[in-house]
This record gives sequence, C-alpha cells and structure tokens, in this order.
Amino acid sequence: MNKEQLFEQIKLKRSFLCVGLDTDILKIPRFLNETSDPIFAFNKEIIDATQDLCVAYKPNLAFYESQGVAGWISLEKTVRYIREKYPEQFIIADAKRGDIGNTSNLYARAFFDHMDFDAVTVAPYMGEDSIKPFMTYLDRWVIVLALTSNKGAADFQYLKNAETGEQLFESVLKTSQTWGTTDNMMYVVGATKAEKLEEIRELVPDHFLLVPGVGAQGGSLEEVAKFGMNDMCGLLVNSSRQIIYASDGEDFAEKARNEAINVQLEMEELLLEADLM
Amino acid sequence: MNKEQLFEQIKLKRSFLCVGLDTDILKIPRFLNETSDPIFAFNKEIIDATQDLCVAYKPNLAFYESQGVAGWISLEKTVRYIREKYPEQFIIADAKRGDIGNTSNLYARAFFDHMDFDAVTVAPYMGEDSIKPFMTYLDRWVIVLALTSNKGAADFQYLKNAETGEQLFESVLKTSQTWGTTDNMMYVVGATKAEKLEEIRELVPDHFLLVPGVGAQGGSLEEVAKFGMNDMCGLLVNSSRQIIYASDGEDFAEKARNEAINVQLEMEELLLEADLM
Repeated sequence: MNKEQLFEQIKLKRSFLCVGLDTDILKIPRFLNETSDPIFAFNKEIIDATQDLCVAYKPNLAFYESQGVAGWISLEKTVRYIREKYPEQFIIADAKRGDIGNTSNLYARAFFDHMDFDAVTVAPYMGEDSIKPFMTYLDRWVIVLALTSNKGAADFQYLKNAETGEQLFESVLKTSQTWGTTDNMMYVVGATKAEKLEEIRELVPDHFLLVPGVGAQGGSLEEVAKFGMNDMCGLLVNSSRQIIYASDGEDFAEKARNEAINVQLEMEELLLEADLM
Repeated sequence: MNKEQLFEQIKLKRSFLCVGLDTDILKIPRFLNETSDPIFAFNKEIIDATQDLCVAYKPNLAFYESQGVAGWISLEKTVRYIREKYPEQFIIADAKRGDIGNTSNLYARAFFDHMDFDAVTVAPYMGEDSIKPFMTYLDRWVIVLALTSNKGAADFQYLKNAETGEQLFESVLKTSQTWGTTDNMMYVVGATKAEKLEEIRELVPDHFLLVPGVGAQGGSLEEVAKFGMNDMCGLLVNSSRQIIYASDGEDFAEKARNEAINVQLEMEELLLEADLM
C-alpha cells in the first residue's frame, strides 16, 4: 500500500484509527480460554467488530512472543485473517527491531515475506544499515521510532547535539528521512507530547506519523490533529487497551466496537474541520 | 548465573568465547535439509563440537524469526538442548528488543520464563523503563547496546552532547549503569572500534562487555583484550560466521571445532598474559 492508497482509505472510512492488538492472554475474557487458540479467537472478534471503523491494525509482537510458539502461530493466523478478509487494512508489526544490515534483512524477510505485514517499527540506534533493508520491498514501510510516549523517552531522545543544537529525536528525523521516501517511511511520535508535533511537522511535513499514547496513556486526539495533521491527514493514531479491553465479558466485541465508534466519530469531525473530506 | 560464576567458567574453559548461532537455512550444509529440523540439527552438532571451548552461545533471533513458526520451534529446542546438556553455558538471546515498560515486561517473560535464556540484548533508545523489566529476574541479565560494530553506528552513537560533551554511547553507558548492577547488566561494544574500549573501560570498569565483530567483521582479539580486559576478564567475545560456517560439507562440525580451538588457544594465551589464571 502506498501513501495515496492509505489516504484514500482514511477518507473512505472517515477514520485514521489504528487498533493495537496488544492481546494479553491474562486480560482477554476467560470464556475464550475454552477455544483452541484464545488469542486468535479474541483478535478475530475484535477485528470483525472494528474493521469498518479503522484503517490499520498493529499487533505488538511482545504479546505474542511471550506465549512462545503458540503465540507465534496466533500472530500468523491473525495477519492472514486480516489480509484475506479485509485486504484494505494496513497491518503494522510493532516489533521495534533493528540490527546490522544483513540481520535486518532477515527481519524484513520475517515480516514481509514470511508474514504479510505492510510495515515494521524499528529503533534507530544502530543507524542507516539497520533501517534500509526494510525499504527494499515495494509498498512496504519502515516506521522509525522518533519520540516515544514513555517516561524513559527523556533519558536519551531529548539530548541536545553540541554541533547542531538539535535534540536526538530531531537528528533521527532529519538524518533518517534522507534514507527513504514519504512512501516507505513513517515515524513513531508519542501523543503525550502533542505540542512537540508542531516542531516535528517542520522537519517532516509530508511523512505519515504513527501516534501511540492517545487514550489510556493520556494524549488528546484533538491536540494531535491540531498539531500533527497535514494535507493527506498524515496521521495514524493508535488505540489499544481502551478499545480491545472495553469489557471482559461476553459482550467484549460489541463494547470494543462502541469505543471504536466514539473514536471514529471524533476523527470524522477532525477530518471535516481540516477540510480533508 | 552471576558474574562470579561466569568468571569461574572462563577460568575453567580458558576461554571467553561466545559462539554466535546465526543459523541461516541457506548457508548450512545441504545434506541437513533431509532432517526434520535442519536448523536444530545444525545447532546441535555445532554445540556438541564447541561446548568445551566456549562459555556462551548467542542465537540471533532474526535468523529464527525469518523461518516463522518453524524457526521459533528450532530456537526453543536449541535453548532447551544447551540448558539440559551443558547447564554451565551462558545463553544470550540476541534480540535487540526494547519497548515501553509493560511491553518490555512481556519480552522479559518471553525470554526468561517461556524460554530459559540467561540474557537478552536490548536497544537503549527508549530509556530506563524499556530496560529495567529485564533486571527483575534473579541471575538474569540485560545486555545494552552501547557502541555497535556496523557502519550505521556513526549516524547517532557518536553525536556529541551539548551540555556534557559526551558522545551518545557514553551517555548511554553513564546513565544506564545507574539502573542496574555489574551482576545484571552488560554492554555490547563492537570490536571494530577496539581503541574505544579504553575510553569505555573508564566509564564502566567492572561490567562485562559483549564484543561482536571479531573475525569476519575485522576486529582483532589481541586489541580487544589489551583495551577491554579487567580483573575478572570482563569480556565475552562473539564469533559467528567464522566458526559455524567453517565448512559446508559433512565435516562442518569438525571444522567448526578446529576454528573454535584456534580462538580458544589465543584466548588462553591472553588470559595467561593478564595473569587471570
């Protein structure tokens, strides 16, 4: 999927919602434990209940890896299910990988060849050759961590460079954008720093931004849109816990849908205000 | 395993070698493809042939993930095999993970509970809460990327801080060592920058360093020992390709052993010179 097609989906769905499939075996409704693959059973219901309200799904790999081989099977089934039933969805592996060139190549193979993800999140610490292998696949994306939404972001991401005066996350944005295009790179920018989005938009006006931290982590959707939206929307806003764990009863999918509707309606409003539809 | 026990193993084996199990299905001897699990079959032979010459094994996760579920099964079997047959070995998941706190928790669960690794490599970009969850397990380790051996290391790791004058990798070393102890943290320092080890030892005199990049990537073992060794050795030097792909014929394990013997003998010499045995 390229940028144009992603924007088409956003207009069609009147939504730039990404549903985070942070599926924790300890948090899903207990009655699902009677099924042969509870994690997949949960994901399938959540996906069916939200697919017309969002443009992307983002499984966080940690949740699947913590279950070993069984988790990996649930993940592969989830990706295949979305790809077959809702091919218009953009599927993100929230994996935060990054290794030397020939090794990143293998991660790209894992996520783009072996599984059919559209994008992978990557940490920038190891530089260009750790990121470039993800950009050799047509219509696949790398999503580089720039400014994250956690407390530890303050430890290194704000360190100011002696020569340029830029903070580390700004150097990451400036340097890494020369490695790819707005059709194969996005950036992770945490919503808890919504005012920072204004500065970030000066550095990367045309890139899509993947924004976690709205909802449970405290960020405001309105602020994110105010500072972060561009003329192709340019935003994928992720919500995980608030949607997928809206209820732990038999009605979990219905309640998840209700939460997603609330977010979608707010997004529709913001897209209309920005004159993008 | 704690630092003392690791040093004991180093003295016993007269070696600080870590064998990197970067097992690529496309590079292993072709006759192994007739077995039901070629990657595990290869690892098993390599391990049996080298276990008395090394103190650690380090599977790089990318090689296993690129094979999907089958690769994950090979990985779990490999870890279990080492743990059962050679319990004195230190087993490192070269995973380069790192996510917000509650997610890093799950990665720790994956590698320490679900699988029985001793240590996991982690990227520092997301700061303290991305690293601390790996240090809540007794006698388990987190190995933080400081200075890597790839070309892209130059993109961000050397950026100089405006306030302290430190380069980013120095800030990572100084800040992160306050989060743990020399009994639950190590650092990755690439051997291609052996002279940098002298500066690094000033910042972290007592931590173990995991040193990749010796051999195929060009670093010199003698230089690494000269600048990096401390009074408990303090080094795990990794070699992957040079050992495990010494031959692609039926004699691959024997040839791998010969390569490992060469490295072990050089290490024994260096340990004797440093008066550590």
